[in-house]
Amino acid sequence: MRTVAEKMLRTCNLLCTRKTTNGDTEAHPSNIETAAQMENIQHLDDMEAARADVHHVEAVAERAHRGGGWLLSGILCINVLILGCALVSSSAFNSVAVTPVHRHILLIVLLALTMLWMLFYTTVTYRKNKDLITQDSHAGPVWLRAGLVLFGLLSLLMDIFKMANYIGYLHCDSAVKVAFPAVQAVFLVTQTYFLWVHAKDCVQLHTNVTRCGLMLMLSTNLVVWMATVTEESIHQMDAPNLNVSISPKMYRDSYDQVSKCSCSHSACSTFKEAFYYLYPFNMEYSLFASAMAYVMWKNVGRLVDDHGRSRAKFRPREVLMGPVLGFLLVVVGVVTFVVYEVEITFDDQAVRRDALLIHFVMNIVIVSLMCVSTAAGCVIYRLDRREHVSEKNPARSLDVQLLVGASMGQFIISYFSAVAVVATGVRDNLDALNLSWAVLMVLQLCLQNYFIIEGLHREPFHVMQEDALHTNAHALEERGQAGGITEQKSRCRLMAAMRPSWKRRVLKEVCAFLMLANIILWIMPAFGARPQFDHNVEMKFYKFTMWTAIVNIGLPFGIFYRMHSVASLFEVYVIS
Amino acid sequence: MRTVAEKMLRTCNLLCTRKTTNGDTEAHPSNIETAAQMENIQHLDDMEAARADVHHVEAVAERAHRGGGWLLSGILCINVLILGCALVSSSAFNSVAVTPVHRHILLIVLLALTMLWMLFYTTVTYRKNKDLITQDSHAGPVWLRAGLVLFGLLSLLMDIFKMANYIGYLHCDSAVKVAFPAVQAVFLVTQTYFLWVHAKDCVQLHTNVTRCGLMLMLSTNLVVWMATVTEESIHQMDAPNLNVSISPKMYRDSYDQVSKCSCSHSACSTFKEAFYYLYPFNMEYSLFASAMAYVMWKNVGRLVDDHGRSRAKFRPREVLMGPVLGFLLVVVGVVTFVVYEVEITFDDQAVRRDALLIHFVMNIVIVSLMCVSTAAGCVIYRLDRREHVSEKNPARSLDVQLLVGASMGQFIISYFSAVAVVATGVRDNLDALNLSWAVLMVLQLCLQNYFIIEGLHREPFHVMQEDALHTNAHALEERGQAGGITEQKSRCRLMAAMRPSWKRRVLKEVCAFLMLANIILWIMPAFGARPQFDHNVEMKFYKFTMWTAIVNIGLPFGIFYRMHSVASLFEVYVIS
Repeated sequence: MRTVAEKMLRTCNLLCTRKTTNGDTEAHPSNIETAAQMENIQHLDDMEAARADVHHVEAVAERAHRGGGWLLSGILCINVLILGCALVSSSAFNSVAVTPVHRHILLIVLLALTMLWMLFYTTVTYRKNKDLITQDSHAGPVWLRAGLVLFGLLSLLMDIFKMANYIGYLHCDSAVKVAFPAVQAVFLVTQTYFLWVHAKDCVQLHTNVTRCGLMLMLSTNLVVWMATVTEESIHQMDAPNLNVSISPKMYRDSYDQVSKCSCSHSACSTFKEAFYYLYPFNMEYSLFASAMAYVMWKNVGRLVDDHGRSRAKFRPREVLMGPVLGFLLVVVGVVTFVVYEVEITFDDQAVRRDALLIHFVMNIVIVSLMCVSTAAGCVIYRLDRREHVSEKNPARSLDVQLLVGASMGQFIISYFSAVAVVATGVRDNLDALNLSWAVLMVLQLCLQNYFIIEGLHREPFHVMQEDALHTNAHALEERGQAGGITEQKSRCRLMAAMRPSWKRRVLKEVCAFLMLANIILWIMPAFGARPQFDHNVEMKFYKFTMWTAIVNIGLPFGIFYRMHSVASLFEVYVIS
Repeated sequence: MRTVAEKMLRTCNLLCTRKTTNGDTEAHPSNIETAAQMENIQHLDDMEAARADVHHVEAVAERAHRGGGWLLSGILCINVLILGCALVSSSAFNSVAVTPVHRHILLIVLLALTMLWMLFYTTVTYRKNKDLITQDSHAGPVWLRAGLVLFGLLSLLMDIFKMANYIGYLHCDSAVKVAFPAVQAVFLVTQTYFLWVHAKDCVQLHTNVTRCGLMLMLSTNLVVWMATVTEESIHQMDAPNLNVSISPKMYRDSYDQVSKCSCSHSACSTFKEAFYYLYPFNMEYSLFASAMAYVMWKNVGRLVDDHGRSRAKFRPREVLMGPVLGFLLVVVGVVTFVVYEVEITFDDQAVRRDALLIHFVMNIVIVSLMCVSTAAGCVIYRLDRREHVSEKNPARSLDVQLLVGASMGQFIISYFSAVAVVATGVRDNLDALNLSWAVLMVLQLCLQNYFIIEGLHREPFHVMQEDALHTNAHALEERGQAGGITEQKSRCRLMAAMRPSWKRRVLKEVCAFLMLANIILWIMPAFGARPQFDHNVEMKFYKFTMWTAIVNIGLPFGIFYRMHSVASLFEVYVIS
């Protein structure tokens, strides 16, 4: 008993003395932060002090976090982003003064600068930090990195097709159009490698340079994303199946130049068709990379205590109903989607109406099933209550923010659609279906956001299990000494861990089903379904410009939302 | 010595035992959070344990924070906001199906619901919480509440003018147009009183209802803000001094109805002119109220330790140069602004060019002076280093976020302007001036954001002074016992507090000057200066629709930014 008391006293003293020492020396946080942190790291061997220490060190890091580099990198990011935004919009809206060539030059400069910084990081910063760098186990989970590689490969394919296409125009168009995909291809490889290796790093030295570099990387990826979204929107506007009464004058200008210049080889149109289908993957790649850069930026100067807890494993055999139903839904969805895509190009109005009817009905069925299963999942949450994880975790906070932020896109489209249909009066059954779809979609988004966010914050099952086993072993050991209360506690914990597993199983089934349902809802818009333009109630109501602006800004976010939901649901599946 | 050790040991034990107790009982945070917190409050009398306790309690509150109410209120807020956005846009873009009457009905419903909740809060929630509520001393500072009252009064005036105006149309227009300002007037009084009294509350009971209520209040204010911004934009489009080659067809529709109906009393046009000048104040009021509601929402369930530290006082006599120069700038600025506003309405192109020339030159002078003084302030920061405050403070975080977010509006306008002028080639001296203005504005925004954010995070001077006095007294007491190191430390602290005050004085001069300069930059756009439309390079470059969208979305944010900067600079002035 006496030794325990002495140990505690020592810890307390250590804590207090350190506090005063730091209080005096930390007047210049940016200069001495690392020194203070290094000193702290050296003390980490004392097991008792470790936990308290980490908290204190985190406070120091937090303070350093507010230093100059943090602010400067933020200002840099804003400037790059808005300049990029201005140039991209100009090249879309006024292609006479600012041509796509200007946009490509800006992008090449940004990509080159980012690559230079990545080179600097791996050769200088990382080597200097090698002994100091701690790893944030939550950052860059394997699904995110795997997704990055997958989308990176598809983006690489897009760049190859682009090069092959633009080489055919070399005799009459700028060489920059070939140079850009070439530079982007190199960038894709470099960045994917960089993020695969360094996504978990918490940098302690060169913090200011690293913060600025990461913000440059973030803004470069976002500018690339903006450029891709704009190009895709222009392509969509140009597509032949857009039956608009008002002609999109401003967009036509940018295609006049291309039409004057003809391709020198025969495969041009094939390549062009192919690379437009790969655009969604490039967008996802940019967003994935930005998210990882942001988490790395948040982790600069942070010291985390890696618990070394075992991670939960993915066991696909535990579930059956969910995947089967979900798979059926995907198959039926793909079939109706293909029918819709074929029929909507016909000139016959009746066939087009049929196509829209099928598409609306299919979407309503999918969304209704999702609502029902998500509601069931929420009920299970109420029945199977768990503690919330209180640990600080920038990766998870970002996940939640991205999820809610991206859902806005679909929210806006659905609400605007519903208002337009209600205001013009529901005239026929297509209108009625459109309205039901919009209302059900809003409900589904609310339910799914609740389900995922709540799921991500609950304590993982494997942690509960471990804790229970731990406490139990402890209780058995000390039964002779302590008795009563401790035993009761351990029994409670064990009961919790041995809880009937049907609730967990239902949760897993729901997650699996929702994952597949989100995939089909992702496939449809990503591969070109635009019922928002084929059914022209909203277009007449809001006028052409406003409605295309809403859809072209909202839909890419909606597509990203589906993508991101799949990833988050996978995490909920694993921890429930 | 022995008693100190015993005390520490007790604290440690207290900390550890409490941790395990909570660990077991907190399985249902939403149900038992208050019980756990109440228990914690009762223990607050132990001075030693208090500090450790507060940290633990904050963790508990943090965990409870992630509960159901938090999520539900967020979902509620998103839905109200987007529905409001859809209805407001519809009534602006399609005034046949969705008239302003529909918009007013929605707003009346929202205002009524919010008032009902405020009534419920003051009669039920507040009474139940009376003994539990802690106060967040950072929330709702006096300048914010004073601003709220001032803008509230001006908004009330606006509502009275509106009623007087629309009463004249009662014989041929809807009565809802009179009912809405009446309801809004009642709402203004209720909400201002509510926020004045309850802005600092940290609610502990009824947390879920309170969160939802606060989010309803937040979204109501934002929807009112959106409606006001839209109405003001429509009014701006309709203004006679807008020389646009493309006629704004879509906006004209909404005024056709009014033109058919004539006013029954003679003062109509005066009232109408008057209430449009009061719109900017109503926008600011809504944003102030939303910000306060957000901070209250963040504080629900939070237990703060009020240090009871003396607050810094505002002493206007300390500075001279800054206010005098700033006042001169305001006077000259107002004079040139009036000249500009008068001359720009002339038909003569030469006079109009002169007016623009004067306006651009004046703005360039103001922005350049601001850049120079802000840079001087940043240099002083480097010379007079201080610790950063690490304490958690939702009000300050929100301040910083709002500042950066609002600056985006002006950033976007300036960058788009610069790109347009550069791309079309700088043709005459007006173009050159416009370009310099845009570039200097970007520089000024970057510098000012850095200056304010860094200033808000530095340790306040009065706290440093107190600490130094404290340590000094302590050192004198213990000199006999401890000697050496402690004495040296105390001397350091004292030196810091007695530092030559010229640096502090320069900082205060800079703050005072910037405050007045921001006021004149606020007055010009708020009272109708629109050089973005009078000088039509950007309009020709981006086309009418896109450029009006950029300016009408960006400028209200820019105006709010100037407003908010004044408030933040005032805080920097007080603490430096």
